[in-house]
Amino acid sequence: MSYTEYKLRLTKIADISYTAALLSWDQETYMPEKGAGFRAQQIATLSALAHGQSTSAELGDILNSLNKSGNELSEKEKRNVARSLKDYTKQKKYSTEFVERLSRTASECFQAWQKAKKENNFSLFAPLLETMVDLKKQEAELLGYEAHPYNALLDQYEPGATVAALDILFKDVREQMVDFVKQIAAVPKPDDGFMYRHYPKEKQWNHGLDLLKQMHYDFEAGRQDISIHPFTTSFNALDVRVTTKILEDNLKSMIWSCIHEGGHGLYEQGLPSGEYGLPSGEAISLGIHESQSRLWENNVGRSLPYWKANYKNLQSLYPENLGKVSLEQFYRAMNRVEPSFIRIEADELTYHFHILVRYDVEKKLIGGELKVKELPEYWNACYKEYLGVNVPSDDKGVLQDIHWSHGSFGYFPTYSLGSFYAAQFFHRASLEIKGLENQIEQGNLLPLLEWLREKIHRHGKFYSAEELCTQVTGEKLNFKYFMDYAKNKYSTIYNLKKEAV
Amino acid sequence: MSYTEYKLRLTKIADISYTAALLSWDQETYMPEKGAGFRAQQIATLSALAHGQSTSAELGDILNSLNKSGNELSEKEKRNVARSLKDYTKQKKYSTEFVERLSRTASECFQAWQKAKKENNFSLFAPLLETMVDLKKQEAELLGYEAHPYNALLDQYEPGATVAALDILFKDVREQMVDFVKQIAAVPKPDDGFMYRHYPKEKQWNHGLDLLKQMHYDFEAGRQDISIHPFTTSFNALDVRVTTKILEDNLKSMIWSCIHEGGHGLYEQGLPSGEYGLPSGEAISLGIHESQSRLWENNVGRSLPYWKANYKNLQSLYPENLGKVSLEQFYRAMNRVEPSFIRIEADELTYHFHILVRYDVEKKLIGGELKVKELPEYWNACYKEYLGVNVPSDDKGVLQDIHWSHGSFGYFPTYSLGSFYAAQFFHRASLEIKGLENQIEQGNLLPLLEWLREKIHRHGKFYSAEELCTQVTGEKLNFKYFMDYAKNKYSTIYNLKKEAV
Repeated sequence: MSYTEYKLRLTKIADISYTAALLSWDQETYMPEKGAGFRAQQIATLSALAHGQSTSAELGDILNSLNKSGNELSEKEKRNVARSLKDYTKQKKYSTEFVERLSRTASECFQAWQKAKKENNFSLFAPLLETMVDLKKQEAELLGYEAHPYNALLDQYEPGATVAALDILFKDVREQMVDFVKQIAAVPKPDDGFMYRHYPKEKQWNHGLDLLKQMHYDFEAGRQDISIHPFTTSFNALDVRVTTKILEDNLKSMIWSCIHEGGHGLYEQGLPSGEYGLPSGEAISLGIHESQSRLWENNVGRSLPYWKANYKNLQSLYPENLGKVSLEQFYRAMNRVEPSFIRIEADELTYHFHILVRYDVEKKLIGGELKVKELPEYWNACYKEYLGVNVPSDDKGVLQDIHWSHGSFGYFPTYSLGSFYAAQFFHRASLEIKGLENQIEQGNLLPLLEWLREKIHRHGKFYSAEELCTQVTGEKLNFKYFMDYAKNKYSTIYNLKKEAV
Repeated sequence: MSYTEYKLRLTKIADISYTAALLSWDQETYMPEKGAGFRAQQIATLSALAHGQSTSAELGDILNSLNKSGNELSEKEKRNVARSLKDYTKQKKYSTEFVERLSRTASECFQAWQKAKKENNFSLFAPLLETMVDLKKQEAELLGYEAHPYNALLDQYEPGATVAALDILFKDVREQMVDFVKQIAAVPKPDDGFMYRHYPKEKQWNHGLDLLKQMHYDFEAGRQDISIHPFTTSFNALDVRVTTKILEDNLKSMIWSCIHEGGHGLYEQGLPSGEYGLPSGEAISLGIHESQSRLWENNVGRSLPYWKANYKNLQSLYPENLGKVSLEQFYRAMNRVEPSFIRIEADELTYHFHILVRYDVEKKLIGGELKVKELPEYWNACYKEYLGVNVPSDDKGVLQDIHWSHGSFGYFPTYSLGSFYAAQFFHRASLEIKGLENQIEQGNLLPLLEWLREKIHRHGKFYSAEELCTQVTGEKLNFKYFMDYAKNKYSTIYNLKKEAV
């Protein structure tokens, strides 16, 4: 059993999986509406094929044999085999019947969620969500776990993440951020009305492409299109696609979704294309992926240096809207902090309270401490407690996100992990890249990208998230970097006294 | 062994094949250039998977068993099983390795062709084309044939077509058309200079969409995009895609390519979606497919009644170019007959000389009488002989068509067959649809589409091409209908004396 044979098999599986990804990309961008039925069937067939090949006895033999005879392999090869064997063992735990049930429930649950959200009626969603939660509990049992069943689900998105560690992390979030946000809430908010004037679609589209070009997103190895919800997908490191959404009455939507997805896209473009289909050619985890999008979106894209480079151009694009708005006003407006009840519209601070609520709810649902029927009341109480807002209705509350209808329990925490990793990475980059701030002020983003390529992208999944973080920053994930970043930035914006912070 | 099991298996195979078609569509429309390498590999993997499932022993057992116990099946089911068994037997002759080689070579060959054409350098294409011709020769041997190896390839696109029959047909073309075209050449050509004024891209694009809408092309079950070479592809009858090409200095390119591909698209949209993956849900042959595009492009789209309905609108779109051009002038210009060296720009008469050359070249390449390196010289000599033109350079000569880069040998003759079938079908439609000409003059194309749906589209592959032609028109393909159509139309346009015709 040779490593070459292993590579060949993983390459074929990748061909199938990435092709399924193209089916999905097309579904979200260009597919005519009547094509939906057959498309769902085509995606299901491709997914089943990939699953079949990922769990074949032949692959199992190759992996076990290579894993034993490991001393002939390089360190990278050993790690690839070990990770593939772990994936294989996990995949083998699913019966075809269970996979089918999960997939059928997910599509029924999604239909119910859509209807429930549209009609603002949680009871239409509740029965199917209950079935879904039951299935996810079964999935946790079937996968196995230590300490808490939710750990099995977390591990799907963020290998190594545990309730024990996240409890500590979100305790820090609560203890350190609640007061800080209260201080901000006590002072007048910057005006951001000019963000909601009329911004023509075509101009925004061209501007978005320029933003990506400035980030050195490679348009010979990628493209941007329009979709209802922005996303990034990849068919290999040389064909990475981002999408954006343009609202003519909201400048913020396109700019920061574009930079955000661009960050995801740069990570995918930076993965080694020679390792196609192997763990060493893949992203580490959703948390690390999100660290790349958040770093560009927030640490770069919502920073003063970035807009020192770019604001004049933006003003010249929309003189009627921004001609009289100063850079300072624009910077303060984009960083307006205000508790709200919709996650995807939240600022970069209160955003984490939204995640905290979802983490708490998921953990309790999977742990059996919370019942589906108790969800709306519990949700609203949490929003009152952590964000101080009264949720006006379930469609703007517990029904707002698509994730649970898909069965994605354990996904939300990776959004916060991403922001926290981003702050820690960016802090390190600032120490290691000479004059980084100055370069950003000049609109030169290449040194930062090169640093990310060197330190993070090129390694694929060679390191675990924790190993990578230690390797790059000298320590494990530490929430302090995010809080330092937040306090520095927002104390200045809101003129908070340093001693009060 | 049940018919249901057979349907299920064919559905899965269709899922894979149509997904491979999406990979190809994307490659020619939106894929970023660096993605080409992995895309070739992905298409190869999917093709191999489809091939594997199309040749599985289980499918063979089901087909053989159903074929024997045929009396429990309906006539349609029987024919489906018989056709699938024929396909199965053919597919079994290919090894997976051969299919993968063919597919990979095609993708590489396509890339090389693009570069060679762009740089007008045949030698960049030649080595890969040689490999391709060798593979096609091997394919002919492996499939088996009578009389001529090219017959095996012809049969892939036009089941039942043979060198013997095509030699006779193209002899008729030569004998009856050469003189007629000479008569036309002897009288002054209509001026068509206004076709080559500046026609802005955006306006042409929107106009093209309107042309498709008027044909009742369903945009909820299809779309149009831009590609280098216009084509139609389908992922099921509810998702059919056409592409077009827009030249700002040539109005003709977009209009007639758009109507042409629209005709293909209408055929695909008219196939019964409930028969997805089965022969009864598929097009009969490329010749019949082309009959649908040619009927719309020529018999409708280059007719006087069609432009009586549409010319005023066209003038209002481009008043600066067409304001002073009469309908009569426009009609004569679009039907200007003039030998040229580019196939896709040819008029509907000399077009068939282009096919004649390609048929001759392919027959000789596959028969071993002509070598790839001799191609440019041979090509240019043929063009001199049949069309009387001097090919200025290879990019406008032997490199002009995409087909060989895809390995599509045996494809070109179906273009001529399509025109000849179209003339015969349209002649029949004129007899059967009351006031057809008048309806077209009113811009009402629905009765014609409904006739085509009823007589041709809805049957899928229930009939063979010959059966269908006989069923619809009362006789087998007869070149006379095309010549009658051509003589009537062009004698009028060119004021030729009827007795001279």
